Amino acid sequence: MKIKTTEQYNRIIQGATAILLTEGLAAFSTTKVAKHIQMAQSNIYVYFKNKDDLLVSVFRYHQKKYIQFLVDRIDLSLPPTDALRNLVSTLDEFHRTNKESLDVIWSIRQSTTLRQLIPKVSDDQIFIAIFQWLKDWQHQGTVRQLPLMYLTNLVFSAIIDYFQLIDSKEMSPNELAIEEIVPPLSALLFV
Amino acid sequence: MKIKTTEQYNRIIQGATAILLTEGLAAFSTTKVAKHIQMAQSNIYVYFKNKDDLLVSVFRYHQKKYIQFLVDRIDLSLPPTDALRNLVSTLDEFHRTNKESLDVIWSIRQSTTLRQLIPKVSDDQIFIAIFQWLKDWQHQGTVRQLPLMYLTNLVFSAIIDYFQLIDSKEMSPNELAIEEIVPPLSALLFV
Repeated sequence: MKIKTTEQYNRIIQGATAILLTEGLAAFSTTKVAKHIQMAQSNIYVYFKNKDDLLVSVFRYHQKKYIQFLVDRIDLSLPPTDALRNLVSTLDEFHRTNKESLDVIWSIRQSTTLRQLIPKVSDDQIFIAIFQWLKDWQHQGTVRQLPLMYLTNLVFSAIIDYFQLIDSKEMSPNELAIEEIVPPLSALLFV
Repeated sequence: MKIKTTEQYNRIIQGATAILLTEGLAAFSTTKVAKHIQMAQSNIYVYFKNKDDLLVSVFRYHQKKYIQFLVDRIDLSLPPTDALRNLVSTLDEFHRTNKESLDVIWSIRQSTTLRQLIPKVSDDQIFIAIFQWLKDWQHQGTVRQLPLMYLTNLVFSAIIDYFQLIDSKEMSPNELAIEEIVPPLSALLFV
């Protein structure tokens, strides 16, 4: 049996990330990853059972980074609108500094087959935290009486729509700064 | 040269739709389509240059159906909130009666490679109509002063999020009827 090292594991994850981002999910292969990092393809299979196992591990790697980043910075104990502003700017900071990780998370989540192998969005710690935060304010009558699942999705969609328009250059941050989405989002959530 | 018929063309489009919806984009192949509709694979290539050409044609077929449905029913000349309600319920009607078409449109739009071959979302007639509608009301001071591209995306996201939660059975229409998304969406759009 071959000895596994964290260094090699990470090299494979980085290589797989690069191939995924340049070639897309449909064209992704362990052959391409092996070539890119100059490693024997058989060695990749020492670490990962198959292509899907590698992709799920790539997802988990970036997901962990994302969750840690947010957990360290988000403060939902602030007054509702301030907490929302804090959430939006923290996600924006992650998007600016770790765009690759978000792209990996989104592209794997969009795959019908892989989606079944990765943790559900609703099991995501940040999703749960926001869900609970909305629930608490809903009890106080501050948040609109709509299903929390729908409200939580709306918050994420409003933020992700912003990033996607910026990334695709359909909109520039000069036209709309991320903080400017807070008032309409507040109007949507709070009564 | 083989004679092309509309009947055969449509049979291929229907077969390709069925394979796309059951197998997903990654596993889609003209071999599977040919087998499914019991037609020689070579005959498919009389109608379509390659797999991507077939997929783009499948997209256009469903997109046309979708746009025609909405163009026939949407009335944006109503007062703003009524027009929004009309839009939401028309999209809901299409979702209930033509779910397959929406699934095809979404799955092809999510593909990085195919997205470059299909019309852009912002060229979509319905998107343009809603964009223009928001623009007119923005001039009157009724719609929030935010980039129209972002506002239009938000309207679609709010509606699509609803459909996706219903389709995935994470939420039932008893918990939230589609009409109930109109007030929060109004609060978001209108000042």
